[in-house]
Amino acid sequence: MTNLLVIGGSDAGISAALRAREIDPTSQVTIVLADSYPNYSVCGIPYFFSGEVSDWHNLAHRTAQEIAEQGIDLLLNHVASQIDPQRKTVTVLDPAGSVKSLPYDKLIIATGARPVEPAIDGLDLPGVFLLRTIGDMLTIQTYLETRGPKTIGIIGAGYIGLEMAEALTQRGMSVTLLQRSGSILVTVDSELGALAQQELEGHGVIVRTGINVQRFSSASESIVVEGSNGFSEKFDMVLVSVGVVPDSVLAQTAGIALGLRGAIRVNRRMETNVTDIYAAGDCVETWHRVLNRYNYAPLGSTAHKQGRIAGENAAGGYAEFAGTLGTQVIKLFDLVAARTGLRHDEAQAAGYTPLTTSFQAWDHKAYYPDAHTLTFRVTGDRHTGQLLGAQMLGHRSAEVAKRIDIFAAALFQNMSMAGLSELDLSYSPPFSSPWDPVQMATQDWERHVE
Amino acid sequence: MTNLLVIGGSDAGISAALRAREIDPTSQVTIVLADSYPNYSVCGIPYFFSGEVSDWHNLAHRTAQEIAEQGIDLLLNHVASQIDPQRKTVTVLDPAGSVKSLPYDKLIIATGARPVEPAIDGLDLPGVFLLRTIGDMLTIQTYLETRGPKTIGIIGAGYIGLEMAEALTQRGMSVTLLQRSGSILVTVDSELGALAQQELEGHGVIVRTGINVQRFSSASESIVVEGSNGFSEKFDMVLVSVGVVPDSVLAQTAGIALGLRGAIRVNRRMETNVTDIYAAGDCVETWHRVLNRYNYAPLGSTAHKQGRIAGENAAGGYAEFAGTLGTQVIKLFDLVAARTGLRHDEAQAAGYTPLTTSFQAWDHKAYYPDAHTLTFRVTGDRHTGQLLGAQMLGHRSAEVAKRIDIFAAALFQNMSMAGLSELDLSYSPPFSSPWDPVQMATQDWERHVE
Repeated sequence: MTNLLVIGGSDAGISAALRAREIDPTSQVTIVLADSYPNYSVCGIPYFFSGEVSDWHNLAHRTAQEIAEQGIDLLLNHVASQIDPQRKTVTVLDPAGSVKSLPYDKLIIATGARPVEPAIDGLDLPGVFLLRTIGDMLTIQTYLETRGPKTIGIIGAGYIGLEMAEALTQRGMSVTLLQRSGSILVTVDSELGALAQQELEGHGVIVRTGINVQRFSSASESIVVEGSNGFSEKFDMVLVSVGVVPDSVLAQTAGIALGLRGAIRVNRRMETNVTDIYAAGDCVETWHRVLNRYNYAPLGSTAHKQGRIAGENAAGGYAEFAGTLGTQVIKLFDLVAARTGLRHDEAQAAGYTPLTTSFQAWDHKAYYPDAHTLTFRVTGDRHTGQLLGAQMLGHRSAEVAKRIDIFAAALFQNMSMAGLSELDLSYSPPFSSPWDPVQMATQDWERHVE
Repeated sequence: MTNLLVIGGSDAGISAALRAREIDPTSQVTIVLADSYPNYSVCGIPYFFSGEVSDWHNLAHRTAQEIAEQGIDLLLNHVASQIDPQRKTVTVLDPAGSVKSLPYDKLIIATGARPVEPAIDGLDLPGVFLLRTIGDMLTIQTYLETRGPKTIGIIGAGYIGLEMAEALTQRGMSVTLLQRSGSILVTVDSELGALAQQELEGHGVIVRTGINVQRFSSASESIVVEGSNGFSEKFDMVLVSVGVVPDSVLAQTAGIALGLRGAIRVNRRMETNVTDIYAAGDCVETWHRVLNRYNYAPLGSTAHKQGRIAGENAAGGYAEFAGTLGTQVIKLFDLVAARTGLRHDEAQAAGYTPLTTSFQAWDHKAYYPDAHTLTFRVTGDRHTGQLLGAQMLGHRSAEVAKRIDIFAAALFQNMSMAGLSELDLSYSPPFSSPWDPVQMATQDWERHVE
């Protein structure tokens, strides 16, 4: 009977615990959780602010009771402060303030990530917020309800910044998005980013790119935001969302090796360099199948996979993480942008000889109502013809999310661009064409490489 | 300079001609077409009757002019009557009634399929229709417009019958669907067929299963339909859609070998047994990747692929048809049903040891608005764990069409059920869950096999 201890009760931690119980039903599994929100979908937070999710409790993937029913002990509001790999114990502070020592046979670290706190003066002013946890969400909600701010400046146009721009616009606020670089949604090429920017602006979001925010200051019930290019504007509140960093301090102090960006170094079995200690999720380095090396790619879908691998191995099974492709999707009002694999510059840096082509097609037969344009950027290797990555943008009814998954499935198998045309994909006029647009895009790429 | 002659101007024929011109721009390509509707999307016909496509000309994938611009000669209303493989000529009857002999270096037969004419008395009565071609469509449309029928009996609940039931219901007619077998939509398991039947009935379609229609007779402006179990009912018109058979007579009389169901026998290069004669589309046998043998599977998407292979080979290139998986999708009112690969009985007959499991999940996080249930049937091999097939049914907003394609892409690569969980699929709460429902379904299958 293995005594498995998991630190962290979000995606990776819960996924690990569930898999361990599945692999070895005799295992004793305990999750130590710093707050009282186990297994919450932090990706769902913007939809709480938009009002689309009325009860925030629904954001939980599972309730505490459902987790308990799987034979997992949940220690809520227990803060892990120290790991002793020699004695195989973890020191925790319980909600009453008492220090306890929890023994383990196998330990899984799933401490996640925390928001980057950029070097901006006044970051700690009232009315300036970071957003990562359910706790942060509730704090902001209280501010919205009690202070009724009308305007917000959102610093950073990554996924959270963009989704919050949509959500707070829907809530009736006036949103200004301030982005340091020259385009928004930098996870895709600027050509697609520009279409996303149009969509935001079409819904009333003010987008300012090329603004390096340097200073927040208080001025009569509002926050003055100052930045490069003489930018200075007042907002009723400010949200800073400029990315995350792995929360790996606990691991580091236990002598566990860190790698890229301070993420915990793991092998494909999700083992750290310390015996019987695994790690998974947003706190670890992630193997990338196309880069053929580790990178830092904190995503909920990846965290679930890594957690499952860690749980299986910790429970005595054998599993290896197959690697990420960085597949991701975002909805912005009526638009959806998605990507998988490498972009041109990433492919070049990884030693490939990429060719990237742009392509547009209707998502389904144009004679059938509500056809919308899909815009593609596909990247492949000129010499080998190998698919390296794809980006796609289109209307929310155009099945963009699951269409990028056709590329993802092909990429997972190292398929060639030509190979995509061999896939037997579904066709009916309301959904596609006899050649799916995905195949039209790769055939177009082939014509360019010849 | 190759002189390439193509008989048939629908999906396979046009696809072959286009690919030949792409592979060898010096090739001289001529298409002989029996009617005046080149490259029409016959899959779009129901949407003309529903009124969703207002101008039937829009059903063309390409106009005659667009085809001509690719350097292809189109001979409309030319009926090919004989192939002489020794002299390498095809005898055609031109629109003026003159007989011509067309020479070829390479010939591609793409004569398609024609509707099954079942042994029902009175099949040739006025008011009783078959539907396959644009010509048939226009004939029926004239009947609808001039006679204004209020009720229709549709014989056969395959794709055309079902889509026509929806279309004519939308048009305001009272539709009765008569199906010989005990369930409708027999391309998927009866469990899913029953859900499709509910959807039809919910929209007012009368569905009668287990009725073997034996006789049509005329009675004062209407057609009496009589069948097994004492069935007898009057309709203003009748549509018979009980499948198609390959149109292979021309090939057969030229000494070309036929196979399954009278379809033209071809190899993976789409070559017939006669030198320099290729065949593709609904008139040929189709290689099935999972069955590992040929079957008869007339689908527009397959016809395009086979045509492309035939065109490439005929133009001096080298290509092999990778095989079909039988991937298909149909929309019925607000429901979508899709499948790929083998069902349980098919897998068993093919020598596998199948296990098939049922599963349901939300298409995306339930906390986000408009989540709908996806119903799965997944089939895998108990011994090897190999994915063999999948069926899926859900709301039209649930990305069923491109979600079945995840299975199709995995199946194409002979992936295992466990392998599906390794795929890095896109996730955002409006579209999926951290494990896509596809992965939840295969994980559920794994739990059943253990």
